Amino acid sequence: MKEKLTIVKVGGAVVEDEAQLTQLLKDFSAIEGKKVLVHGGGRKATKMAEALGIETKMVNGRRITDAEMLSVVTMVYGGLVNKNLVARLQANGVNALGLTGADMDVIRSHKRPPVALKTLLHGKEEQGVVDFGFVGDVDRADGGMLSKLIEEGITPVMAPLTHDGMGNILNTNADTIASETAKALAPFYDVTLIFSFEKKGVLRNPDDDESVIPTITRADFIRYKEDGTISGGMLPKIENALAAIDAGVARVIITLATAIDGNSGTIIR
Amino acid sequence: MKEKLTIVKVGGAVVEDEAQLTQLLKDFSAIEGKKVLVHGGGRKATKMAEALGIETKMVNGRRITDAEMLSVVTMVYGGLVNKNLVARLQANGVNALGLTGADMDVIRSHKRPPVALKTLLHGKEEQGVVDFGFVGDVDRADGGMLSKLIEEGITPVMAPLTHDGMGNILNTNADTIASETAKALAPFYDVTLIFSFEKKGVLRNPDDDESVIPTITRADFIRYKEDGTISGGMLPKIENALAAIDAGVARVIITLATAIDGNSGTIIR
Repeated sequence: MKEKLTIVKVGGAVVEDEAQLTQLLKDFSAIEGKKVLVHGGGRKATKMAEALGIETKMVNGRRITDAEMLSVVTMVYGGLVNKNLVARLQANGVNALGLTGADMDVIRSHKRPPVALKTLLHGKEEQGVVDFGFVGDVDRADGGMLSKLIEEGITPVMAPLTHDGMGNILNTNADTIASETAKALAPFYDVTLIFSFEKKGVLRNPDDDESVIPTITRADFIRYKEDGTISGGMLPKIENALAAIDAGVARVIITLATAIDGNSGTIIR
Repeated sequence: MKEKLTIVKVGGAVVEDEAQLTQLLKDFSAIEGKKVLVHGGGRKATKMAEALGIETKMVNGRRITDAEMLSVVTMVYGGLVNKNLVARLQANGVNALGLTGADMDVIRSHKRPPVALKTLLHGKEEQGVVDFGFVGDVDRADGGMLSKLIEEGITPVMAPLTHDGMGNILNTNADTIASETAKALAPFYDVTLIFSFEKKGVLRNPDDDESVIPTITRADFIRYKEDGTISGGMLPKIENALAAIDAGVARVIITLATAIDGNSGTIIR
């Protein structure tokens, strides 16, 4: 039987709020056994860009990363957010190591080519071609070196940045970093991947915060999709989770940022 | 006999200039065997602070690091400079890993207490008490984990940041990072520590760039100090180098940033 490993992904909202962050670090530190933290930081990047007079452009909720914005996210995700998380985890007795995909060539990606997209412009849906700029789509994550470090008692803390192997840092979605890392570590560990977000789990009724669906299998998902129980932004999240399961991840949990103990939320398996 | 390891320290001026940086990365990548890169980044931090409307205060050439400036150096040194160096070294086939002292608890320091200093104020020397703010004086560097990584083929790339073990990042002089790392690795390797700077080496005659002193031992240093050959800012640099030698570092080389092959400059041993 493989040893347990927990991967927790936290979003920018948690990282930005001091009270939530303190709680998260406490909860994460209390998780027993081997673990990995993956963080976002989008709001802090937007704020920093604003302070530098750099305009933040978003299309369908995704950031356009031009050269200036790439510098901002490299600084904010790889430096400010990542290194402060590392220092604070060290203070909690967690031997953290901050990483981007460039470090030890852990996650390699390629620059996303311009994509044809339906975009909402001035309240009207339009078909257009969008260049997201220096954004990386992951080619491969290397679990070998990561697992060696984890075996040495190290807790990787991963920033949402990768590299293309040609010297360029690329901005990469933190959910993707989390699931690619989980898949890469699945041959070595019994992996639980926890996505923390603002709800208690996947809700049966979006107006009832307590209507958490405890378990979703692929068969459940097909049914919930057909009957409309699950829709909108939750669809790609669960599809992504099921893909991780198919790739060997033991379970994916979608839960509240304050409930990352592995016993709350919706379990996808 | 211990295996060779080369540690190269480069200053902010090199990191900032694209032509110099490209050359440095080429030269560093060409160094055979195990190696470590230590970088500064002061000028980029000053520029970034300026863009953010944060005033840079220096006393005797050293930065005062208040809370705002700490955020700037954490971003710039730990993120922007460090991660770009890592990505570019990866492109050169060097399996780089960016580190601050907080990562894996590699270098721990304490916040420097306010110090009594002779400062030059309005052209007049004055005795005053200076609080450098969030600046770290190193307590210990851990060569054990670093050497394990190096044995795995990893090249650490170290930013001038440490931590106090209580959750705080501290701004730390890059020369100090380099010599503390060299000392910590001395039990494991035959360490050559290379300080790159703007001259060809320690000069016998400051007006003659070619008057490089090839070798300095402690006995030489005492003589050169007495007869005034070595003075000013070069004194603490060489004292620091000799302390590294006393702590087991095989040799320290002071050389031009474009001549880090180990065969140029002044060898201190």
